[in-house]
Amino acid sequence: MTLKVNHVLHHEKSKYQDILIFESSDHGIVLVLDNAIQCTESDEFAYHEMITHLAMNSHSNPKKVLVIGGGDGGVLREIVKHSSVESAVLCDIDEAVIRLSKEYLPTTSIGFQHPKVSVHHADGMEFLRNCKNEFDVIISDGTDPEGLAKGFFENSYFELLNNALREGGIVITHTEDQWLRLPMLTQSRKLCIEIFPSVEYGYTTIPTYPCGQIGFLICCKEENRNLKEPVRSWDEETEERLCRYYNKAIHSAAFALPVFIRKALS
Amino acid sequence: MTLKVNHVLHHEKSKYQDILIFESSDHGIVLVLDNAIQCTESDEFAYHEMITHLAMNSHSNPKKVLVIGGGDGGVLREIVKHSSVESAVLCDIDEAVIRLSKEYLPTTSIGFQHPKVSVHHADGMEFLRNCKNEFDVIISDGTDPEGLAKGFFENSYFELLNNALREGGIVITHTEDQWLRLPMLTQSRKLCIEIFPSVEYGYTTIPTYPCGQIGFLICCKEENRNLKEPVRSWDEETEERLCRYYNKAIHSAAFALPVFIRKALS
Repeated sequence: MTLKVNHVLHHEKSKYQDILIFESSDHGIVLVLDNAIQCTESDEFAYHEMITHLAMNSHSNPKKVLVIGGGDGGVLREIVKHSSVESAVLCDIDEAVIRLSKEYLPTTSIGFQHPKVSVHHADGMEFLRNCKNEFDVIISDGTDPEGLAKGFFENSYFELLNNALREGGIVITHTEDQWLRLPMLTQSRKLCIEIFPSVEYGYTTIPTYPCGQIGFLICCKEENRNLKEPVRSWDEETEERLCRYYNKAIHSAAFALPVFIRKALS
Repeated sequence: MTLKVNHVLHHEKSKYQDILIFESSDHGIVLVLDNAIQCTESDEFAYHEMITHLAMNSHSNPKKVLVIGGGDGGVLREIVKHSSVESAVLCDIDEAVIRLSKEYLPTTSIGFQHPKVSVHHADGMEFLRNCKNEFDVIISDGTDPEGLAKGFFENSYFELLNNALREGGIVITHTEDQWLRLPMLTQSRKLCIEIFPSVEYGYTTIPTYPCGQIGFLICCKEENRNLKEPVRSWDEETEERLCRYYNKAIHSAAFALPVFIRKALS
């Protein structure tokens, strides 16, 4: 996967990572952290809508929501579309990502402007240690396991997430793509299953991520929850007003796995 | 999308097109026609299984099946997995593709070895002019609309397909990806709707195609056919024996469209 750079808009090394923002020929403005594409203007909506609404619509009444990472603001933008939400808290270690997203990615970072949103500049693991029984939904939107967010793919992180959730709470995290990193995906899923009684793997298409897709692990504190079907949904008109990618049918379709994945995960 | 070439296995200009076969670093052996990737060993099964079984399992009893193009043999390999099939006819204009696929892509071209298979080296349009009311399923597996198969994306071709189908027959053709070529996709769908009473658009993921996916238009001579659900399916054990990608759940999921596609096609 290669993108053509029209021109570089900004490049800096923050305290935590290398941040590059450029205008591409075909995918609008692109945010790159430690050499991995985080989002492009052309398709960020697929990722942000799916990671958010798969989780949010798996909860009957999400009031308090936490985002770990997510400094571009795209997940916040989606969370506040749910009228039940009273508070959306974002914890991203790197203020530079938030600052630059506000400057260069206005349609994504618009999420920060909502009055229900509050932001903490802190390490996600540290922040979670002080959260007990506090959130209905937690969306883990860190970088790749190779980068800064390495700890977000380890056992201790999932335990902290579990503790931070209220009864019936939902956690979602992005994971490896299913074509090139299937062994890592099965490993991540195993970690989740050890901690959460209900776990499913689903995915979305998104052209600018490796292999044109990204996977999600969605976990619930409740036993025997069917996470493949949303517990809430919008009518078609509302879907078209609120979303460009997510809808009720695609929620279920995200969990229809190719045979080779189904076998690997069984 | 770029693939690293380990070494070139074969390069020739046939009477009709430029044919390149190389071994890639991550996707096995790759067949390239007129500079467009046709198939790679690593993911061809996604495309071949989906284009074939979406069509075949939309017919209650497919006996006679035609492939237009498909010179690598992958679609034939899938067709003969259906025990109802009495005859699978392939018509590809370029004998060189078939010859080279047999030499360099044995796991794909294995389809040619089946006793129910027969091959014609002819122009697809010419071949179809002599076919009336003859096939239960036709799978159009040509190259891209920019290349040799340009005529396969025009009105007259769909009329020939319609005439060549028996009562209740099914046609499937691959089409443009939905992210970069949505206007061409809506145009192709319009052509189909003018001729066939039942038409649906679906897609599969496949890492080495543009944007990591490819779309299909599936058409039926019968009115009011729900093409989003298979009329036949295999049990899970049979699915796992016959397929690496296709299964009953993914058949339906292939037609769950993102909001922006649903709107564009409505």
